[in-house]
Amino acid sequence: MTMSPHDEMNNLTMSEKAKPLLDAVVKHIRDNCDPALEEYERLGANRAERWGYGEGQLEILEGLKNKAKEAGLWNFFLPNAETGEGLSNLDYAFIAAELGKNPLASQSMNCSAPDTGNMEVLERVGTPEQKEQWLKPLLAGEIRSAFAMTEPDVASSDARNVGTRAVLENGEWVINGEKYYISGAGDPRCKIMITMVKTSPDAEPFRQQSQILVPIDTPGVEIVGPMCVFGHDDAPHGHMQIRFKDVRVPESNMLWGEGRGFEISQLRLGPGRIHHCMRSIGAAEKALDLMIARGLSREAFGKKIIDLGKNMETISRSRIEIEACRLMVLKAAKAMDVLGNKEARVWVSMVKAMVPEKACKIIDDAMQVHGATGVSQWSPLSGMYTKQRTLRLADGPDEVHHAVVARAEVKDFRNSNDRQAAMADATNRGSRMFDGP
Amino acid sequence: MTMSPHDEMNNLTMSEKAKPLLDAVVKHIRDNCDPALEEYERLGANRAERWGYGEGQLEILEGLKNKAKEAGLWNFFLPNAETGEGLSNLDYAFIAAELGKNPLASQSMNCSAPDTGNMEVLERVGTPEQKEQWLKPLLAGEIRSAFAMTEPDVASSDARNVGTRAVLENGEWVINGEKYYISGAGDPRCKIMITMVKTSPDAEPFRQQSQILVPIDTPGVEIVGPMCVFGHDDAPHGHMQIRFKDVRVPESNMLWGEGRGFEISQLRLGPGRIHHCMRSIGAAEKALDLMIARGLSREAFGKKIIDLGKNMETISRSRIEIEACRLMVLKAAKAMDVLGNKEARVWVSMVKAMVPEKACKIIDDAMQVHGATGVSQWSPLSGMYTKQRTLRLADGPDEVHHAVVARAEVKDFRNSNDRQAAMADATNRGSRMFDGP
Amino acid sequence: MTMSPHDEMNNLTMSEKAKPLLDAVVKHIRDNCDPALEEYERLGANRAERWGYGEGQLEILEGLKNKAKEAGLWNFFLPNAETGEGLSNLDYAFIAAELGKNPLASQSMNCSAPDTGNMEVLERVGTPEQKEQWLKPLLAGEIRSAFAMTEPDVASSDARNVGTRAVLENGEWVINGEKYYISGAGDPRCKIMITMVKTSPDAEPFRQQSQILVPIDTPGVEIVGPMCVFGHDDAPHGHMQIRFKDVRVPESNMLWGEGRGFEISQLRLGPGRIHHCMRSIGAAEKALDLMIARGLSREAFGKKIIDLGKNMETISRSRIEIEACRLMVLKAAKAMDVLGNKEARVWVSMVKAMVPEKACKIIDDAMQVHGATGVSQWSPLSGMYTKQRTLRLADGPDEVHHAVVARAEVKDFRNSNDRQAAMADATNRGSRMFDGP
Amino acid sequence: MTMSPHDEMNNLTMSEKAKPLLDAVVKHIRDNCDPALEEYERLGANRAERWGYGEGQLEILEGLKNKAKEAGLWNFFLPNAETGEGLSNLDYAFIAAELGKNPLASQSMNCSAPDTGNMEVLERVGTPEQKEQWLKPLLAGEIRSAFAMTEPDVASSDARNVGTRAVLENGEWVINGEKYYISGAGDPRCKIMITMVKTSPDAEPFRQQSQILVPIDTPGVEIVGPMCVFGHDDAPHGHMQIRFKDVRVPESNMLWGEGRGFEISQLRLGPGRIHHCMRSIGAAEKALDLMIARGLSREAFGKKIIDLGKNMETISRSRIEIEACRLMVLKAAKAMDVLGNKEARVWVSMVKAMVPEKACKIIDDAMQVHGATGVSQWSPLSGMYTKQRTLRLADGPDEVHHAVVARAEVKDFRNSNDRQAAMADATNRGSRMFDGP
Repeated sequence: MTMSPHDEMNNLTMSEKAKPLLDAVVKHIRDNCDPALEEYERLGANRAERWGYGEGQLEILEGLKNKAKEAGLWNFFLPNAETGEGLSNLDYAFIAAELGKNPLASQSMNCSAPDTGNMEVLERVGTPEQKEQWLKPLLAGEIRSAFAMTEPDVASSDARNVGTRAVLENGEWVINGEKYYISGAGDPRCKIMITMVKTSPDAEPFRQQSQILVPIDTPGVEIVGPMCVFGHDDAPHGHMQIRFKDVRVPESNMLWGEGRGFEISQLRLGPGRIHHCMRSIGAAEKALDLMIARGLSREAFGKKIIDLGKNMETISRSRIEIEACRLMVLKAAKAMDVLGNKEARVWVSMVKAMVPEKACKIIDDAMQVHGATGVSQWSPLSGMYTKQRTLRLADGPDEVHHAVVARAEVKDFRNSNDRQAAMADATNRGSRMFDGP
Repeated sequence: MTMSPHDEMNNLTMSEKAKPLLDAVVKHIRDNCDPALEEYERLGANRAERWGYGEGQLEILEGLKNKAKEAGLWNFFLPNAETGEGLSNLDYAFIAAELGKNPLASQSMNCSAPDTGNMEVLERVGTPEQKEQWLKPLLAGEIRSAFAMTEPDVASSDARNVGTRAVLENGEWVINGEKYYISGAGDPRCKIMITMVKTSPDAEPFRQQSQILVPIDTPGVEIVGPMCVFGHDDAPHGHMQIRFKDVRVPESNMLWGEGRGFEISQLRLGPGRIHHCMRSIGAAEKALDLMIARGLSREAFGKKIIDLGKNMETISRSRIEIEACRLMVLKAAKAMDVLGNKEARVWVSMVKAMVPEKACKIIDDAMQVHGATGVSQWSPLSGMYTKQRTLRLADGPDEVHHAVVARAEVKDFRNSNDRQAAMADATNRGSRMFDGP
Repeated sequence: MTMSPHDEMNNLTMSEKAKPLLDAVVKHIRDNCDPALEEYERLGANRAERWGYGEGQLEILEGLKNKAKEAGLWNFFLPNAETGEGLSNLDYAFIAAELGKNPLASQSMNCSAPDTGNMEVLERVGTPEQKEQWLKPLLAGEIRSAFAMTEPDVASSDARNVGTRAVLENGEWVINGEKYYISGAGDPRCKIMITMVKTSPDAEPFRQQSQILVPIDTPGVEIVGPMCVFGHDDAPHGHMQIRFKDVRVPESNMLWGEGRGFEISQLRLGPGRIHHCMRSIGAAEKALDLMIARGLSREAFGKKIIDLGKNMETISRSRIEIEACRLMVLKAAKAMDVLGNKEARVWVSMVKAMVPEKACKIIDDAMQVHGATGVSQWSPLSGMYTKQRTLRLADGPDEVHHAVVARAEVKDFRNSNDRQAAMADATNRGSRMFDGP
Repeated sequence: MTMSPHDEMNNLTMSEKAKPLLDAVVKHIRDNCDPALEEYERLGANRAERWGYGEGQLEILEGLKNKAKEAGLWNFFLPNAETGEGLSNLDYAFIAAELGKNPLASQSMNCSAPDTGNMEVLERVGTPEQKEQWLKPLLAGEIRSAFAMTEPDVASSDARNVGTRAVLENGEWVINGEKYYISGAGDPRCKIMITMVKTSPDAEPFRQQSQILVPIDTPGVEIVGPMCVFGHDDAPHGHMQIRFKDVRVPESNMLWGEGRGFEISQLRLGPGRIHHCMRSIGAAEKALDLMIARGLSREAFGKKIIDLGKNMETISRSRIEIEACRLMVLKAAKAMDVLGNKEARVWVSMVKAMVPEKACKIIDDAMQVHGATGVSQWSPLSGMYTKQRTLRLADGPDEVHHAVVARAEVKDFRNSNDRQAAMADATNRGSRMFDGP
């Protein structure tokens, strides 16, 4: 895992080619999304149905999507140069940092999670029929989608535990089981779920799972209700609890082939993770700005709050960790570009285990500087905190990613004659070793 | 302090030009320094004088120096392309990482602290006479030097507190005061000290100090004895306590001009800091390897120690922090190259406050995995720990560097209309803000 | 602050006298409150008015209150032996630990915050008329009350910042200002607010404030709406934002005398703080149990989750901190008994700064062990977290309490010849000091 | 592990009976030990032999011992009322806190480690002959002793790993193996080692080990040299590396019986652990005083250092943790009194895992406030740090004690119907649980 100095992985600059795209994205957000946001949120607040959109909201969204398409800002997230822009992950990381600044930005350019990952999977492994039926409307921004993986009854951090069963009967997969925290399945536009199921219980552990397309309106699919995050239901997007009771889909809905569920998961690693991490950094930046702004604006005990106690050191530590996180995320993006997703997965796990945890700390510190206002509805901090805290559990809890990193490190050590040889000398009963490096 | 994506500061690759030099350094250490080390240390252990060298030690050193000169590996640390190699700080950072792997390496190539900083200062601000008398033998590796700054009677973290007085009398500076932790002043080859003194108590605060050349054998210079670090005197290099009692040096020994002491200090920021931080990272890497090697080699309670409790997570966290520190140090080096030392000082403070603290944590964790052996003479860990712990106090304690970073951050916030404008909205009594980024 | 070994402050056992009361409280909760809870909550969930009670809820409460009165479990919190039980703070601490186990318990025995503190204040400093009008119905459990202190416009952690003005005009205090996070003011039964106001801006800093009785239905009192905690409004209790616009109350509503606002605050320190801290410990205990229960019930990677990674160490650290917190709270309670509230305030600040922070950590760790369920509505953990997190800001943020403790410590050091004398020797240039204690 | 409120375990006051003894100990240290210390250390510094005593040192010690005997301050550590004072562990804890204040105190009253533990073991399980030969001179203070347990070749944290073999041949135990960190074995007065050996490799795991008396001058006992702690050899006490090569001792040197090595270890838990922990607290108190003294005595950036940055909060946190640690140690001592050593072992593990770690943090913070002086020989801090750091590894590393605590906690949970029943409700898909305690 050590770095060679000449290594191209150390070049973390955006490509020249991607610059115009970034500039166009910035312009689109500033000129189109920013002015639309307040009205959009007002319409949403007054909506009649909790699990629907307010009158006029979707019209605003469609308008933004048209403007994005006109500006050529559509589906650029796709790594495939034909359908998308062929952006490198590193280039996309810089763009993702901008997307996080306006909640309408991603959707307006058709690059919201979990659609991005789903489209990527369909493009790579979908059959022509699957592409026609699901990828096409997704690429067109006509429907939305979900990814149904986590289950309430087992520790889903170990994906082998997935227990929702799919059994082939008369040319149909019959699915029974329960999923929860299915993000986006509350949206009325969500039409299709890529669903992780156990098809082959007798195969070897990593060949038992499959991914299968389940239209959300299939009989037997019951959306039980929203799962909350710190008591919030995140409507109308939602993180839904869903039961599958004798749900039948055609055999042809299988993705890539029975038993390839884990392989497909490897493909999803890409832009999504980097996107999330860049948003965590954006949140940490915002928390730091809030901390400073609040610290400068209030006085207590004869001083500005920012000058009391450890607050200045907290600001410094926050800045240092933000910069360290940013460089690590860029490095992970570059690693995906250079090494491919599989080899780069250790870098991805490093940032996944590192960034949300540090973001939580920074947001929490900012809350403390705010006093009671910090936990109130007048400040975005508590909402930001719960999002980052949840990220430490989603897509594998921190512990799973630390395990990936640690195992890779130990394996690297075992495989490295140099590292082992140096250690053979290092703990040595004969020599006086006090003056180490 | 935020980063533009196209910024050349994000390119952390070594230059093509420096590659051959790096390769030559690696080869020199492997072929010349490594084979010489054991004998060198054995001779040192048996030396007669604690504050001298054992018979044959200096011969070994001179031999290595000759080999380095032959290979063109001499004084390359100097940023000036005429005397040195004109290496960028980033290039030097990669080389410094190699230097840390053998304790003879730096000296053999004439790039040991504090000589490097002293030579840099003399080259930039020395008079022709000063260069002739002191820079020339330093560049030739014939003598060594010290930098006398810290004082026992005041909080030297605030350099304005420096109290050693120099008064001009009859064309001579008469110096009275006391310094401590003057590293390298125990070495019999040390001939000259660049000494921070107060010459101008009535000037404005940052114009009161000067730096002045004091030959170590000047009458009135009393080397009281070594200051210890966790009980160790680090002989024969040493961190000496030195009293100045009516020490008289010619007026011409003043560097650059009376009252320019602080300005000169700015010049010292360069390669030295980066060098130290890369060595801290080297120490952390070594500690991680020791942790893994030990964890794999012992068993308790039916498992390898590495598989007990939190040890694997500790390994992951260590790897993550090492990579984050490395990227930050490279970024700081690049910042010096792109922005100049003055503008880059915030980056330098960031890594100075970050890296030794994290290295301490990693070494401490490695110690814990080793059990009693971890604090014993059989392991380098306790010596490594004391070095890194001391670095958190040397060259400005962590707190001073955090203050630099925090003040810069607040200043940047105050100067940024964008950052302030965003905050004006963020804490807003009217709107529902729970769903932050 | 050091402890004498024979000191009665070290005896942390409950008094014999209080045992029967504790037993009766436990019995009342088990026999009366526990069976009533489910129905009470069901009725609440279906209530028509967010800021009211469901049909039948208050009847359940009144029934429980009657049973408590019959069992002699009424107003025992009052330190005065005539009105209450004359319980020591230590005795009350043990009882408070039981109260935390059922959300109906405190109210059923008339010892809910903030009524307890308000009654205590009224009993000690109220005029006969004030007692007749407000204390009597409070003691009878007929009305509820609030304490209006914190303001949105200033850093209320420095109580001198309180800016709500009260001006005496024609025998009436005319009040203008704004308060927020006024807990309990959402309850329709809340009739009276003890309100901190600035009456005497020209007096010395700690004599400018007064506390005054403001009936909640006084014209000019506008309850703007609820302040949220992590997006929750805690209805119908509520933490309300309240504006005072030319609110007029009789001159006789002043408590104790103009300018004595700070003095009165000292009186409130008692049972309330201890009560809160014992409930924090109860929450931490529950989180630990949840952590263990979850860890035992799920498997991943071939092991029970409890046996993965650092989970067992986390359990140990949680248990250790819980026991340390409990002993500290008992000690603080005992200190109030032995030293009086004023002298014991350093102990109270110690536990206030210590306990909620540690409870947050333990709850957060429990959440992580639960995976996504930990942040969901299926687990009480996220609600418990937000409560404890908010306690780090309420009644003085941690930082204010740390400042109290630190200033007392430094003062104690300055006043102690022994401590200073020992230090005179300790940093000593002459002696070899490596072998400290 | 939860606490009953009436529990006598909550009474942490010293017994009336022990007060006069405490007073006499304080008087003896002040009147006899304190005045003798400087001369004793001077004589030691000038001693000819590193592993011996300076001329006159032992005479000073013997004089102090006679004075202690005259004052009846001899062997009071023994829990047996006939030989010792029959002190409770709690009483002893308060006395131990005093012993830590002068390095001569313990020895002058014959209660130094490891002699105390060895005497306790001999008194409880020694044969009349063993007592006559070894306990008698130990009780008389004529000889000293060591406890040989830890081995360099295995993870001794798992005592089953002990590999030094003892084989019975012709009525003699023949011992082969290697031990290290045998504290006190460097002292010329050390005559006997209680040695943990493997006698019965075929027995069940906890019956394989035995403890056996090995006179240090037995042929085949080779004291290889001192093990260092952060580079220090702690001469002449020393922590020695010892090889056993065909060491033969009579069969009658076995303690208590073959295979009872673990049982004997349980007996050692008593005063020794509490003594260590009270000294850790003493060290933390001293570090806090040093922190304050230094912070008050120096200025930087226009303020006293104590008022810069987070220093005041650090002082508060240190005080809070010290008080928490003290209460926990007293509680553990009381638990030993009330529950017996075996049942109290979880409390002992709690304080062993808690106290040295917290002491390290406090000392480290004090060091940072001192700047370079903090790591120098002018301050006791670095020596104090290394002692506390080593305690985190000695007598079982923190991890082993956390494992003891965690396993007991989980067992308690499994055995408690109440705890389990409460949890059955707590994670419940049906109910809305956000408003937890």
